[in-house]
Amino acid sequence: MFSCVQMNTCAMVLLLCGAAVHSFRFDELIKYVDDHQEEYVQTLREWVAVESDSSDVTKRAELYRMMDMVGEKLRKMGGKVELVDIGEEQLPDGSSLALPKVVTAQFGSDVNKPTVCVYGHVDVQPAQKEDGWATEPYNLTEINGNLYGRGASDNKAPVLAWIHAVEAFKALDMDLPVNVKYLIEGMEETGSNGLDAMIKSQKSTFFSDVDYIIISDCGWLSKRPALTYGTRGNCYFFAEVEGPKQDLHSGVYGGTVIEPMTDLIGILDTLISPSGTILIPGIRDAVAPFSDEEWKMYQDIEFDVESYREKIGVEQLMYNNKVELLAHRWRHPTVSIHGINGAFSAPGTKTVIPAKVTGKFSIRQVPDMDPAVVEKQVTDHLHSVFAKRKSPNKLKVKMIIGAKPWLADIKHSLYEAGKAAVKRVFNVDADMIREGGTIPIARTFQDVTEKSIIMLPIGGFDDGLHSQNEKMSRYNYIEGTKMFIAYLQEVAQIKKD
Amino acid sequence: MFSCVQMNTCAMVLLLCGAAVHSFRFDELIKYVDDHQEEYVQTLREWVAVESDSSDVTKRAELYRMMDMVGEKLRKMGGKVELVDIGEEQLPDGSSLALPKVVTAQFGSDVNKPTVCVYGHVDVQPAQKEDGWATEPYNLTEINGNLYGRGASDNKAPVLAWIHAVEAFKALDMDLPVNVKYLIEGMEETGSNGLDAMIKSQKSTFFSDVDYIIISDCGWLSKRPALTYGTRGNCYFFAEVEGPKQDLHSGVYGGTVIEPMTDLIGILDTLISPSGTILIPGIRDAVAPFSDEEWKMYQDIEFDVESYREKIGVEQLMYNNKVELLAHRWRHPTVSIHGINGAFSAPGTKTVIPAKVTGKFSIRQVPDMDPAVVEKQVTDHLHSVFAKRKSPNKLKVKMIIGAKPWLADIKHSLYEAGKAAVKRVFNVDADMIREGGTIPIARTFQDVTEKSIIMLPIGGFDDGLHSQNEKMSRYNYIEGTKMFIAYLQEVAQIKKD
Repeated sequence: MFSCVQMNTCAMVLLLCGAAVHSFRFDELIKYVDDHQEEYVQTLREWVAVESDSSDVTKRAELYRMMDMVGEKLRKMGGKVELVDIGEEQLPDGSSLALPKVVTAQFGSDVNKPTVCVYGHVDVQPAQKEDGWATEPYNLTEINGNLYGRGASDNKAPVLAWIHAVEAFKALDMDLPVNVKYLIEGMEETGSNGLDAMIKSQKSTFFSDVDYIIISDCGWLSKRPALTYGTRGNCYFFAEVEGPKQDLHSGVYGGTVIEPMTDLIGILDTLISPSGTILIPGIRDAVAPFSDEEWKMYQDIEFDVESYREKIGVEQLMYNNKVELLAHRWRHPTVSIHGINGAFSAPGTKTVIPAKVTGKFSIRQVPDMDPAVVEKQVTDHLHSVFAKRKSPNKLKVKMIIGAKPWLADIKHSLYEAGKAAVKRVFNVDADMIREGGTIPIARTFQDVTEKSIIMLPIGGFDDGLHSQNEKMSRYNYIEGTKMFIAYLQEVAQIKKD
Repeated sequence: MFSCVQMNTCAMVLLLCGAAVHSFRFDELIKYVDDHQEEYVQTLREWVAVESDSSDVTKRAELYRMMDMVGEKLRKMGGKVELVDIGEEQLPDGSSLALPKVVTAQFGSDVNKPTVCVYGHVDVQPAQKEDGWATEPYNLTEINGNLYGRGASDNKAPVLAWIHAVEAFKALDMDLPVNVKYLIEGMEETGSNGLDAMIKSQKSTFFSDVDYIIISDCGWLSKRPALTYGTRGNCYFFAEVEGPKQDLHSGVYGGTVIEPMTDLIGILDTLISPSGTILIPGIRDAVAPFSDEEWKMYQDIEFDVESYREKIGVEQLMYNNKVELLAHRWRHPTVSIHGINGAFSAPGTKTVIPAKVTGKFSIRQVPDMDPAVVEKQVTDHLHSVFAKRKSPNKLKVKMIIGAKPWLADIKHSLYEAGKAAVKRVFNVDADMIREGGTIPIARTFQDVTEKSIIMLPIGGFDDGLHSQNEKMSRYNYIEGTKMFIAYLQEVAQIKKD
């Protein structure tokens, strides 16, 4: 496994090497970025002003406009741009609606240089001022160095930072150290509908000359810059218990039928213990052992458990020490029960015996768990505990999502390049972190294109993704742009090693 | 307790007695009803056409119009009618809306006669054709002797039957055997907002000369006519578990916090066993013992367990024999878990850790349970099982509704009169039944006015109240009108006993 000493030595070598070759011109690029930061903020403001909410079909025109703006921006920079049609989505009412086109762009095609492909998205989560925003969510507002607006951090500023990085080279008439491709989509927030098929279909065209894929759709863990090398997978289950033909009045019928809700509550209660141990037999057997090296690496990560606890607002976390907490956030599985469909869920009172209820829960899984095995373990377990209840109701268990975890080799040169770029711009060692969540596109890129992938975040740890008052700090936005420039230079060194 | 032999003898005496005094004129009334049944159906059609849905504030004008129509109808018959202002309701948006007026009417004020007060309501549950109605819900449609329409059985036809009963006497210029008052409201389906206060305020005015209160807002148990002598109470609870400050992403945070949903599922799972036994300590101690007389009476009730099972559409009921099933439907408590507020309840998938979730469940309670004791037992129990979980989350338990059960003395002359009226019109012995549900107004009438109450249903067992395709059979509507006429005559005999 990974060794810290080795990493730092290696990073220093790259750093010195990069510094020797490009130091002067790098300074010029840095100056260019600093000089143009107001312009960058203004462009972000224009992008945030577009309500590109992919979950709201009534905003679809805005989303189309957003994709056009991305294409136009890249075209003006001299890129070879395409807006790729990825088909339609079926709406619940039976009608269909065109998916926003995927923007691809290419800068440079020098066969002697490596080619990176930057992935990003410009659609956003829903937002309304009434949800509790302090500012208008679609009007980028700067307060104390933070740029508040929906999509600022997720993912418009990182996409723009990547665009501005290349733009700086262009503006200064410098050769790009690597060929740069972009793949920018508009359906990420609702599951990247259409993207998997597009990636598969372009495997031997757009992706044929791509060496590395860069994803900047996540955030740091603390104020210290970080590189992300793993995400958890997600097995999402529906457990449906069906009883009477239709909902019954609980006064009139209560006491004469075994209620589906009682059964569902009963089986959901067998998934996880009060202290957080997964109770599904066998499910933890496949979890990769937590090595001493990992333990040591986790120990060195900058992370304040107490701040984390306070931010979440609970009296006590599931684990109190940093290593255990991070391990259970990133590299151990967990069960979350999200809710129940078909039962009474509104405020107020309703005296109903719901006839059919569907419990929804998911298991975040980690290497070396296999979704197919998890599916069988969960299904067998639930049917077994349900059978013991001797209920006349019917249970159906379905796995709705079976997204695999993703894990990169942190000793890969891509990560060494990342460490060097962070060191150059921020003058600190990057934390090597993982994501508790799932970024399915990483796994798709890995499985379909078989290219190496790095997650290179510039978002802050407290950016409030998907929440009210999402923000991107001006510092992260501008310094992140510089780090991307440095990264392009570092990646260019890889072939020389 | 009650004895069957005694009842039948007594009923026969009343029947013969009534027959001797009024037989000729009763036949005339019966003929009048038969001759006017098309008119009765037409009036019901006009009433059903009014979308007097009290749950939909946008239909409030229709509800006001409905109350006016009731007042007008009673006024035309020569009643002393009042539309009583019962104030306003507060809407969630902070505005207020006038409640529909309560219609009171009086026919006769002969101090030598007893006075009955008929309670009914003319508001309805929501209905849309798209919900699965075979006909337009607000267009009364007759198919095979059934009159389909929202509110037909609940409660417009029974109210009209009571009006037509008095109208027949008036039309034939016959003296009413008793003084008849009406109290018709328009908010029953949403909890009779404003009615309790109105009843209290009119205790010594409108209710001062009322001897008996008649409620015809329920249905028979089978095709055999029935008298209803009890309803269960309802203790409705909210159990709220609160954890993080706001909803969290289950990928990002899962595994680091004790989730409120896990806690809530855990404590809800301690309320009732898979086979239906309430697990809350002490709660069944106060239930009145099931006497041999009751057992015998239940045994004689016309009720087909297999049809009931088929109608509900389950493979197996909680109890398989008639007596046990009816006892658990009417005179034993039960727990129903209705749903959870604050969790994910929509179709589809959402990877959320809900921050605050409220489980909703109710306990139908029966004599001699006391809501205050039930509240303490449930609260203590939930806090006790929650404490064992050692969760950092917070639990709050609140009893939102504490409606007492209602139980009449079936040996009371009101019930003897009911049996006689049923026997006269339908030529069968009425089943003595209870309701599993709660009719809080019965308890209010009892507690505030201290008058005797009878529930005298004419609705069919399969009328589909609150469901799609609600109906009232023409037979029940017309014969029910006759039974009400007979009942007025029977009640007039009570004082003579």
